[in-house]
Amino acid sequence: MKTRVTRLSASAPDDISTLAQAISQGQIDPTRVIAVLGKTEGNGCVNDFTRAFATSTLRRFFAQQLTLSEAKVEERIAFVMSGGTEGGLSPHWLVFEVDASEQADYSLPGLAAGVAFTRDFKPEEIGRLEQVNETRDAVTRAMASAGIQHQDDVHFVQIKCPLLTASRISEAASRGHTTACHDTYESMGYSRGASALGVAVALGDLMEEQLSNEKICSDWSLYSTRASTSAGIELLRNEVLVLGNAAGWDPAYRIGHAVMEDALDTAAIDRALASMPGGAQLTVTADNLTGLLVKAEPSASGEIRGNRHVMSDDSDINGSRHARSLVGGVLAGRLGDTRLFVSGGAEHQGPNGGGPLALILRA
Amino acid sequence: MKTRVTRLSASAPDDISTLAQAISQGQIDPTRVIAVLGKTEGNGCVNDFTRAFATSTLRRFFAQQLTLSEAKVEERIAFVMSGGTEGGLSPHWLVFEVDASEQADYSLPGLAAGVAFTRDFKPEEIGRLEQVNETRDAVTRAMASAGIQHQDDVHFVQIKCPLLTASRISEAASRGHTTACHDTYESMGYSRGASALGVAVALGDLMEEQLSNEKICSDWSLYSTRASTSAGIELLRNEVLVLGNAAGWDPAYRIGHAVMEDALDTAAIDRALASMPGGAQLTVTADNLTGLLVKAEPSASGEIRGNRHVMSDDSDINGSRHARSLVGGVLAGRLGDTRLFVSGGAEHQGPNGGGPLALILRA
Amino acid sequence: MKTRVTRLSASAPDDISTLAQAISQGQIDPTRVIAVLGKTEGNGCVNDFTRAFATSTLRRFFAQQLTLSEAKVEERIAFVMSGGTEGGLSPHWLVFEVDASEQADYSLPGLAAGVAFTRDFKPEEIGRLEQVNETRDAVTRAMASAGIQHQDDVHFVQIKCPLLTASRISEAASRGHTTACHDTYESMGYSRGASALGVAVALGDLMEEQLSNEKICSDWSLYSTRASTSAGIELLRNEVLVLGNAAGWDPAYRIGHAVMEDALDTAAIDRALASMPGGAQLTVTADNLTGLLVKAEPSASGEIRGNRHVMSDDSDINGSRHARSLVGGVLAGRLGDTRLFVSGGAEHQGPNGGGPLALILRA
Amino acid sequence: MKTRVTRLSASAPDDISTLAQAISQGQIDPTRVIAVLGKTEGNGCVNDFTRAFATSTLRRFFAQQLTLSEAKVEERIAFVMSGGTEGGLSPHWLVFEVDASEQADYSLPGLAAGVAFTRDFKPEEIGRLEQVNETRDAVTRAMASAGIQHQDDVHFVQIKCPLLTASRISEAASRGHTTACHDTYESMGYSRGASALGVAVALGDLMEEQLSNEKICSDWSLYSTRASTSAGIELLRNEVLVLGNAAGWDPAYRIGHAVMEDALDTAAIDRALASMPGGAQLTVTADNLTGLLVKAEPSASGEIRGNRHVMSDDSDINGSRHARSLVGGVLAGRLGDTRLFVSGGAEHQGPNGGGPLALILRA
Repeated sequence: MKTRVTRLSASAPDDISTLAQAISQGQIDPTRVIAVLGKTEGNGCVNDFTRAFATSTLRRFFAQQLTLSEAKVEERIAFVMSGGTEGGLSPHWLVFEVDASEQADYSLPGLAAGVAFTRDFKPEEIGRLEQVNETRDAVTRAMASAGIQHQDDVHFVQIKCPLLTASRISEAASRGHTTACHDTYESMGYSRGASALGVAVALGDLMEEQLSNEKICSDWSLYSTRASTSAGIELLRNEVLVLGNAAGWDPAYRIGHAVMEDALDTAAIDRALASMPGGAQLTVTADNLTGLLVKAEPSASGEIRGNRHVMSDDSDINGSRHARSLVGGVLAGRLGDTRLFVSGGAEHQGPNGGGPLALILRA
Repeated sequence: MKTRVTRLSASAPDDISTLAQAISQGQIDPTRVIAVLGKTEGNGCVNDFTRAFATSTLRRFFAQQLTLSEAKVEERIAFVMSGGTEGGLSPHWLVFEVDASEQADYSLPGLAAGVAFTRDFKPEEIGRLEQVNETRDAVTRAMASAGIQHQDDVHFVQIKCPLLTASRISEAASRGHTTACHDTYESMGYSRGASALGVAVALGDLMEEQLSNEKICSDWSLYSTRASTSAGIELLRNEVLVLGNAAGWDPAYRIGHAVMEDALDTAAIDRALASMPGGAQLTVTADNLTGLLVKAEPSASGEIRGNRHVMSDDSDINGSRHARSLVGGVLAGRLGDTRLFVSGGAEHQGPNGGGPLALILRA
Repeated sequence: MKTRVTRLSASAPDDISTLAQAISQGQIDPTRVIAVLGKTEGNGCVNDFTRAFATSTLRRFFAQQLTLSEAKVEERIAFVMSGGTEGGLSPHWLVFEVDASEQADYSLPGLAAGVAFTRDFKPEEIGRLEQVNETRDAVTRAMASAGIQHQDDVHFVQIKCPLLTASRISEAASRGHTTACHDTYESMGYSRGASALGVAVALGDLMEEQLSNEKICSDWSLYSTRASTSAGIELLRNEVLVLGNAAGWDPAYRIGHAVMEDALDTAAIDRALASMPGGAQLTVTADNLTGLLVKAEPSASGEIRGNRHVMSDDSDINGSRHARSLVGGVLAGRLGDTRLFVSGGAEHQGPNGGGPLALILRA
Repeated sequence: MKTRVTRLSASAPDDISTLAQAISQGQIDPTRVIAVLGKTEGNGCVNDFTRAFATSTLRRFFAQQLTLSEAKVEERIAFVMSGGTEGGLSPHWLVFEVDASEQADYSLPGLAAGVAFTRDFKPEEIGRLEQVNETRDAVTRAMASAGIQHQDDVHFVQIKCPLLTASRISEAASRGHTTACHDTYESMGYSRGASALGVAVALGDLMEEQLSNEKICSDWSLYSTRASTSAGIELLRNEVLVLGNAAGWDPAYRIGHAVMEDALDTAAIDRALASMPGGAQLTVTADNLTGLLVKAEPSASGEIRGNRHVMSDDSDINGSRHARSLVGGVLAGRLGDTRLFVSGGAEHQGPNGGGPLALILRA
């Protein structure tokens, strides 16, 4: 079995020309695609319609390619769009294909991937235990789908989750329900945080008993080291992509992960490499770098290594935008590459001010 | 003779408490201060009043310290405020003191610094040859003031220059004059570009005959490798700080420079170190890093190492803000420090998409 | 013959549920639709993808409704998206249908509408005489299509036109061509300005001999009183909708126009009403107001009735966004309605700081 | 006794040239000044340093004028800076002078004004009952200072209040205290809301028993119809200016107020005029309009008269900025004047989506 990851440039949120070309040249088989991650160039916040535009374009494209209804495509492929390419980040797609047809004995575990979806959430469930629990179950289903048996073999869980808008809050209120918060931008954090806690429970990093609605987006000592969650206006359910290494999968592609302890922690790259099967024999090069996924957020202390940052006090540019540009620059300087999947808002994802990082290489 | 450089944190544009403390503790002698550079937390663009607020606060403070009128302080100290601490950049002051009282024989050249000012510019002169020529003359005067005889011994020229506002453009028009451009944000680039070309001519990197009004902000093959120019609404003249190494100056502080060839060029740090007297024996550490000054701009090609960036097409965040956050992240990741003087808009300062970088160490 | 105009709310750039409902209820006949104008909620500037998202959604919808290819839909329907609903403006669609099947004798002229398209422009043609001339010809063709014989019977010409992006500028440069400007946001003004001058020539308000490339976006004494042009990243041609009153058209819908002399000129509503056939007998009410289209821009003087505005010096919010919010507020306060088609950037459209205004009533 | 109000233009946050001129020409007596309100051109949100820059400039200016220490000036004059001149709003100063020297019998009550200050607040008190109660007491003291005996004679209470920053929140946390919220922009609303509720209690519009920490920024049915509160980073206490009409005061200046029921409610101008002593005999003209103060906010319903607005879902421009530009446009269109003191964020100030409005005329 083999998971193949292809990284493609995008010149606009609806530019799928590189994808179409890769398919027409046989580099990608559309029937094997289980997930498309996209770094799109909107603000990554509430009114970022580049995510929905990209999703709409991709869904339609795959419906044509697979001769399926768009509804059927949605049951089959996770479209995880993360807005925001601040600083030098470059809009791109990461296409995940799974080929389960061939069985082989490999000397090393290889990249395994699986997707699952929750049901749609009501506004009052977002950022609360209902979202935690549904996400936990979806992660477990996605692991099974990927054939990953041990929680420790999971290296990264990428999730797309919904947010609250003024009209959603108001709709909940009309039914007599409160929501986790009233500010729409803030709701993105609640949704990301609850989703990340769901991953932590699913992977055994936290116990369900440790959690309560009050602790979500409040007790930062609770976090997952392998969750990356991204909120968007364009969906109401959680879409879950689980990535790990497992026996029986072709080690041509492998994944490693580490936690950036703070925004400047470039050594996380080395630790992620070391965590990978056979990682000690590898170095990251322009050729083998296939995907870099990482979370970024302003530290709540207002400081980075003792020096003040302004990310949280800036009312012109949201903190998550500052954080993406910073971590994007830190890692691009180290890797010489700007097509990095840096996602903003790391609530309950790694320690405060840091975040999980995953490295996918084509060995 | 000795040039001392002190780097101090600022918690707001008018926070000079760290400066006051350094003076009261004898770490800084206000009578020796020739320049204060400030990285302030505004947008770094047209309506950034943090620069003027900082300048106003500093001018007043030094008038009290030196028992001088503010006008006299302005003749003596250059206040070079650069707005914009996007990403993780940390607001800070760089205080330059010169002590010419003692003469000594030093084995190595040390940091030499001098300041000079042009006259106020009329709106129609900004971004044109008049600004180039006046800047050239001021650089020459600042070199003389620093006791730097050879053009090659200059490592960095930091300049603060004016910009056009709607009312300045309109005032020029009322006298029958056109201005270099009509967009106020764009005028910052013209002012920075003309000032940088003045540095290039003063330092022998370009010949006056190569220049014309048409080439300013148009022919990017013409540039200085040692100019860093920053535009602000708070002044009408150019303020020039020349930095170099010269014999007779205490090598306790030394400067080196290099050109970042593009926004990801972290190796410029190594080249700047190598360019420093005795640099081969040094490494940059948290202890000896005293100042890092660098220019950042979006590449006009729209790409970084072949991958698209969105900096120039983003109408929510100006390109110079994206560029500062990117280069700030790239260098902070390498140096582990966010108190970096990253200035946006590198027109005619280094190659397109890159920019000059200066490194000041306390050996 | 009859032109029908329907105004529909939109809850997102891709929300066409109100349109689908109007069709299913027989209020709109998709086979008669010649143009859809949309006020979408992006930034209205360069990287506003809400326009393209809306266009893509509408094009696909009409292809399904009409059982046509999307290419055929594009030959038939003009999709004129204008981004930016700052202040209280409300996203909405204006759907124009023409029914030429019935002939009748009407006592008054009624609303007549016609569309036409130019060819795609090369980057180097945008904002220059080539765009002026092609637009002029398209206006003439659209008049013919509307059956409007006299230039004076035209009340408004709404145009969607392209803009320059970093990659388009760079592509032109690679072929040895300069473009009208280098700043992408500024290019929107050049494209709008050249398109408006094309309208002015077509309608006899200016003579071709009065124009030159140099005068575009420079000589503000040259302008159309009936053009409204809006630039977007999502197209390369100009799409032209001509609106007027003509004999033989059902006066159930009528249009009037006037020029707002400055941003506060609410009396333009009264003058527009007075310019309408039978306007003296009408008042504008919540019931009969069917469409309000107007252009807004910051005055180049930097003042409104002698008081300074900050629109052009604000580097956080572009001037066209400020102008839309201002004029939107001015007219919403007068009309009690926020579903107004206020479009930003009035270069060569009305006097500096003002802009043409059209009022469509269902009498 | 007489309260005189002078409205002066400002060309920058530190431009007090019009004030200096008015004093030198005898139009303003600096010894009588009790308050200066300023509409400055920053973002009006957390990192708006134009307010502090203006305050710092004014405080220093009056210290020189009155030969007092700046600390003494602060005990004497309230400096109430409100950031944000979106749309067409024009930066300006409103200078309030009180001359208690002459006693006269006037046929009508005239404008009476008084100021008072609270103590500095700790971060954990902001947005909570402590701030409510201290504000209530300060309003009562300011009333006494103005010689206004009846609560009903108060027409407007303008308050400047503090906000939370990342470092203030973190400082409170270090002492074991929570704060009303964690988002710095959101904290502005809590501070404004608690301050407004303090006014409501002081003026008898609400009973202390009706309030609790939980109801602040949550139960919108509780509000003052006469409070206008504005938050800023530049102070830690509340500064209170009470305005009313009282017997014994020269009716040359008079104030009236009304509540805008929503953002489009221009009729509030008429009601405010009618509420003024002798208002029935007056009309508002360019000559007699001396001050217009009003609060603006996005309606929480997400709608204005049934049509959707995007103010609360826009992550590029904060909702309070949208609201100021909208209400500024609505009133400027009605009054033909853009020097209006429109302040953003009307939590517990008037009904949701609307806000109190005060009109000061020089009869």
